[in-house]
Amino acid sequence: MSSIDTSIVEGITDPQEARLAMRRGEWTGPTPREVPGYVQCNLVVLPHSEAYDFLVYCQRNFKACPLLEVTDVGNPEPRLTAPGADLRTDVPRYAIYRNGIREEDVFDIRHLWRDDSVGFLIGSGITFDPALNRAGVPTSKQRWLLKTNIETVPAGRFRGPLIVTMRWMTPQQAIIATQVTSRFYLNHGAPVHIGDPSAIGGDITNPVYGEPIHETPEGLIPVFWACGVTPQFAAIESKLELMITQSPAHGFITDLKADELCSP
Amino acid sequence: MSSIDTSIVEGITDPQEARLAMRRGEWTGPTPREVPGYVQCNLVVLPHSEAYDFLVYCQRNFKACPLLEVTDVGNPEPRLTAPGADLRTDVPRYAIYRNGIREEDVFDIRHLWRDDSVGFLIGSGITFDPALNRAGVPTSKQRWLLKTNIETVPAGRFRGPLIVTMRWMTPQQAIIATQVTSRFYLNHGAPVHIGDPSAIGGDITNPVYGEPIHETPEGLIPVFWACGVTPQFAAIESKLELMITQSPAHGFITDLKADELCSP
Repeated sequence: MSSIDTSIVEGITDPQEARLAMRRGEWTGPTPREVPGYVQCNLVVLPHSEAYDFLVYCQRNFKACPLLEVTDVGNPEPRLTAPGADLRTDVPRYAIYRNGIREEDVFDIRHLWRDDSVGFLIGSGITFDPALNRAGVPTSKQRWLLKTNIETVPAGRFRGPLIVTMRWMTPQQAIIATQVTSRFYLNHGAPVHIGDPSAIGGDITNPVYGEPIHETPEGLIPVFWACGVTPQFAAIESKLELMITQSPAHGFITDLKADELCSP
Repeated sequence: MSSIDTSIVEGITDPQEARLAMRRGEWTGPTPREVPGYVQCNLVVLPHSEAYDFLVYCQRNFKACPLLEVTDVGNPEPRLTAPGADLRTDVPRYAIYRNGIREEDVFDIRHLWRDDSVGFLIGSGITFDPALNRAGVPTSKQRWLLKTNIETVPAGRFRGPLIVTMRWMTPQQAIIATQVTSRFYLNHGAPVHIGDPSAIGGDITNPVYGEPIHETPEGLIPVFWACGVTPQFAAIESKLELMITQSPAHGFITDLKADELCSP
């Protein structure tokens, strides 16, 4: 472990073991490329009073917000996707938003979980990276999220731009990636765009997450997928009094096998 | 038109025109095989107080309950899937359930729609029949729905068995049908079962809908898809004071093109 901020327990192949390491505070670092083969999720925790509009928002923007589980009100156990897990402790790092501002990151939210809290687990494209790799499409350790000028369909107070993830690949790989990810319809499915980022209002010199890019890699084109951070953006823009999410790249690891779930 | 119960206006190719004929009371009959190429839906209308649990129920049973639209509270216009349509008049025939009992069928629900009504449009396998036909898999005019012994995942008061539709085909056609319908993930996607109905608790001599079957057609096997009637069953079993659905086989026809929607 290098520091408290980035420690991960490498080599774990069992999601339950990984979650327990997070619960014990031994794993506080990022999750992409870890525990490969299992579905990783974005997390949103909201009070029950906001949950109906958020559910409708997710339904109206299915590609960006595929729901994998909605917990029972007040119960932090996602008993369908990870029985025995605890959403208050089993994510390596949480972001706490108050009135739309990210105030702090914490490793445990037991003190913030309430009787009326509802946890939403939202599919993530991290899930299909191993399938891309197996199909001969290498994926980079670096990740980029871009804001687009595509507006999501509002519901109640929830609204905002579509956020996309970007991956660089050859045109041949882009075709294979479209075939492979089409099956993962609960993890954003097929790409939403291929090629020029500005066609969807994306600015690679100013990503929402990741390093700014000033030169296009030779022979590669960017391919874009709807991103599960989109509903977090909407929740942030709605300036809720309290909202909790995972920190970017610090996902919740379910017991669901990626290759099984993707089969429609 | 043969009688008020079964009249349809044949040959309409535009969904808006079809809906207006329903609104005028000229089309009160079944919709399968009509206005081909457009997504047809099941309808459930519930009071807002029940809508949250119903949304969670649909999320937990995605294969049977893919939501295509949830209307704003009190607004009968499904403005995303059929702008200008009116869910109170644009379904050919409605079933009215009180305390879980189907009390009557009506052609108009304007007198029953309330300020707190929410309309749910749920994907239907009727949608992929033309795609099956084009791929060389003929589909029968006859339809069968069977109750299974597979329990859905409950949410609040909503629970009940998975209902399936059954289609007879050759083994080769079953393979093609699996390929074709996999793409239609918002209309139940791939089959849930192939072969022996009793393996999932199905009884073909006693279907929920359709004629009882006493002899298996030579050389054909039954193929089963999750059915959008499942959430209606759950809503009926929950004995809500008032619930409105479409009558079986009398779907709501959206403006969505089936082949476009099915693309993930």
